[in-house]
Amino acid sequence: MDERFQIHYEITVSESDTIESALETICLEQTVEMPADAISQEIREHIAGKVISVKPTAEKDTYEAIIDFPIANTGGEVTMLLNLLFGNISLMPGYKIIDAELEKLAFLPGPAYGIEGVRKKLEIYDRALSCTAIKPLGFTAEEFGNLTYEFALGGLDIIKDDHGLTNQRYAPFEERLKACVAAVERAADKTGRRSAYFANITGSPDVTLSRYEMACEAGADGVLFMPHLTGLEILSRLAAQNGPLPMMIHPAFSGSQTIHDDQGFSPSFLYGRLWRSLGADFAIYPNARGRFSYTQDECLAINHAARSNSRFARIFPTPGGGINRATIPKWLSLYGSDTVLLIGGSLYKHPDGIQEAAREFRQLLENQPKEAES
Amino acid sequence: MDERFQIHYEITVSESDTIESALETICLEQTVEMPADAISQEIREHIAGKVISVKPTAEKDTYEAIIDFPIANTGGEVTMLLNLLFGNISLMPGYKIIDAELEKLAFLPGPAYGIEGVRKKLEIYDRALSCTAIKPLGFTAEEFGNLTYEFALGGLDIIKDDHGLTNQRYAPFEERLKACVAAVERAADKTGRRSAYFANITGSPDVTLSRYEMACEAGADGVLFMPHLTGLEILSRLAAQNGPLPMMIHPAFSGSQTIHDDQGFSPSFLYGRLWRSLGADFAIYPNARGRFSYTQDECLAINHAARSNSRFARIFPTPGGGINRATIPKWLSLYGSDTVLLIGGSLYKHPDGIQEAAREFRQLLENQPKEAES
Repeated sequence: MDERFQIHYEITVSESDTIESALETICLEQTVEMPADAISQEIREHIAGKVISVKPTAEKDTYEAIIDFPIANTGGEVTMLLNLLFGNISLMPGYKIIDAELEKLAFLPGPAYGIEGVRKKLEIYDRALSCTAIKPLGFTAEEFGNLTYEFALGGLDIIKDDHGLTNQRYAPFEERLKACVAAVERAADKTGRRSAYFANITGSPDVTLSRYEMACEAGADGVLFMPHLTGLEILSRLAAQNGPLPMMIHPAFSGSQTIHDDQGFSPSFLYGRLWRSLGADFAIYPNARGRFSYTQDECLAINHAARSNSRFARIFPTPGGGINRATIPKWLSLYGSDTVLLIGGSLYKHPDGIQEAAREFRQLLENQPKEAES
Repeated sequence: MDERFQIHYEITVSESDTIESALETICLEQTVEMPADAISQEIREHIAGKVISVKPTAEKDTYEAIIDFPIANTGGEVTMLLNLLFGNISLMPGYKIIDAELEKLAFLPGPAYGIEGVRKKLEIYDRALSCTAIKPLGFTAEEFGNLTYEFALGGLDIIKDDHGLTNQRYAPFEERLKACVAAVERAADKTGRRSAYFANITGSPDVTLSRYEMACEAGADGVLFMPHLTGLEILSRLAAQNGPLPMMIHPAFSGSQTIHDDQGFSPSFLYGRLWRSLGADFAIYPNARGRFSYTQDECLAINHAARSNSRFARIFPTPGGGINRATIPKWLSLYGSDTVLLIGGSLYKHPDGIQEAAREFRQLLENQPKEAES
């Protein structure tokens, strides 16, 4: 018997449609793309999706359903898994994916590091981690080096490239990489403790792989990567090669799939579950109350998905936006210590400068009482 | 002075926001990611976006705006162009991209074939083209070969793999490729006219490139490719290499970016303009009245974007869905002869069988009176 795996949907039915026909659409459109009366009983039985369960939710005209599919339909390829999850139905309103049995798919590598691996690498075991982004685009490599040095002197745990920095001529990738690695090393000589520098390796698939290598050789401590720009498969490929650098994943270009209530992926599925299964070690997401649009409950759901039990290692939820010196304690007590807090803009505006901003951020994390975890 | 290029937005302002602050968000969020008071005048002037124009539309709280950005912000990379178009703002409601000066970006290759190149290759100069997909997933390579043979005997112009067929064990890529190429050749021996077979090469970036090579070597006539699964950059890379096979592009996984009225890309921008600039020769899109959700006006806008004047060759709009033997004349007179009509399911249900369905489809195209083109 062919092995199958389940996908969980939230389906909003339009006035002119029924839940039965919406379910039939998924079962056929995501597999055979033919009407039921044009396929054989054998194809229907062994290839098409099968409805396992369906029930109405509290919302009007909205249902939760589980459909299962033969794993063989993916051909063992990440790209076809994405197509099976959300190929043609991405073009129709009303279909939202909220979970899937990703653990059953042997070709998904999961994270090479995860929370435990990152903690061991950074030697920080008992508290949340601080993270910031160096910016703005337009600075030279030397200016980014100086900025990194200031953050490192102040004791920031992870200093990453802003996601808009790649290989622009203002500060070419290799120059910036070398300047920033040198900066964390110089600061470590002075403080006795090394901040981690994460380089943004995003580019074409080939370029991404080669920037990963360059980051290894130059002595970076991790990488930042935007897989929705490059293609999600490269994430799983990098994770599967078990390289020396943990991967922090950024959601650029993915928003249309997660900000609509009745269509796409739930944020917790895409950023917590799918990215984790593909190999993210950190999942950056727009925090509630930031410049973006998730609710606090959605953020808690992402955290839970990133850290729940699974054959994939637990990963660090990395909320960014809406966090500043005044609100750090609140978010820490809400999100727990297995979290990376990403603070950008507000550190740059600290009245006493970058170094002091970093020091204060770090101290707030170190002083946080041990808490109830989600 | 740095060269800049313009992006056109449709912006829907929420009740708690103003158009001024929405514009400022784009200018900063898509470049420096810092508040205006945290960057220098020089960075503001040379790196951030600049509003060129803004005007209200007929819709309440909705505006059209043009913002320009330094081309250097892209670093000459497709991935960073995507980020500049729709990176962080993809995560916020209210921003929709409706056009951009893509012609100014030297790193965008445009199509290797386009309408004229495809017509020359297929030797069909004066009418719309017929296209169908072989399906369902679950058939063996031999069954797909037989099906292709029937369609080819009937004279279908382009017979493509269904987008769900890649390398599943039911009909592995190479076996299916060989069986289908052999089928169009056998039919050509009999009819004196060869149908084109387009193989679905979608996979990881590396696999996509190698399947393109396999398709060339086996004697396929073109390829089908789903760049939103693999990463859009591979499309431009394949186009730039000027290979022997035209590329038909499928929108799987992209729908969330085009089906929401107030967010994402307009369908005409993504499927007509952006794909074309990256190198698509055919742009498949869900036709109005099909199982999907665009209006007829949106479909006409895609056609126009695919065929308007530009430094990029004109490409074939390839509407699929909602087209059958009864409605072919209507769609032809509406869309014009520089169109590929993609018909799937309904051919399979023709009362006189596949071969006759193909023959009738072809005849309807050949008999269509010459028309007023869009």
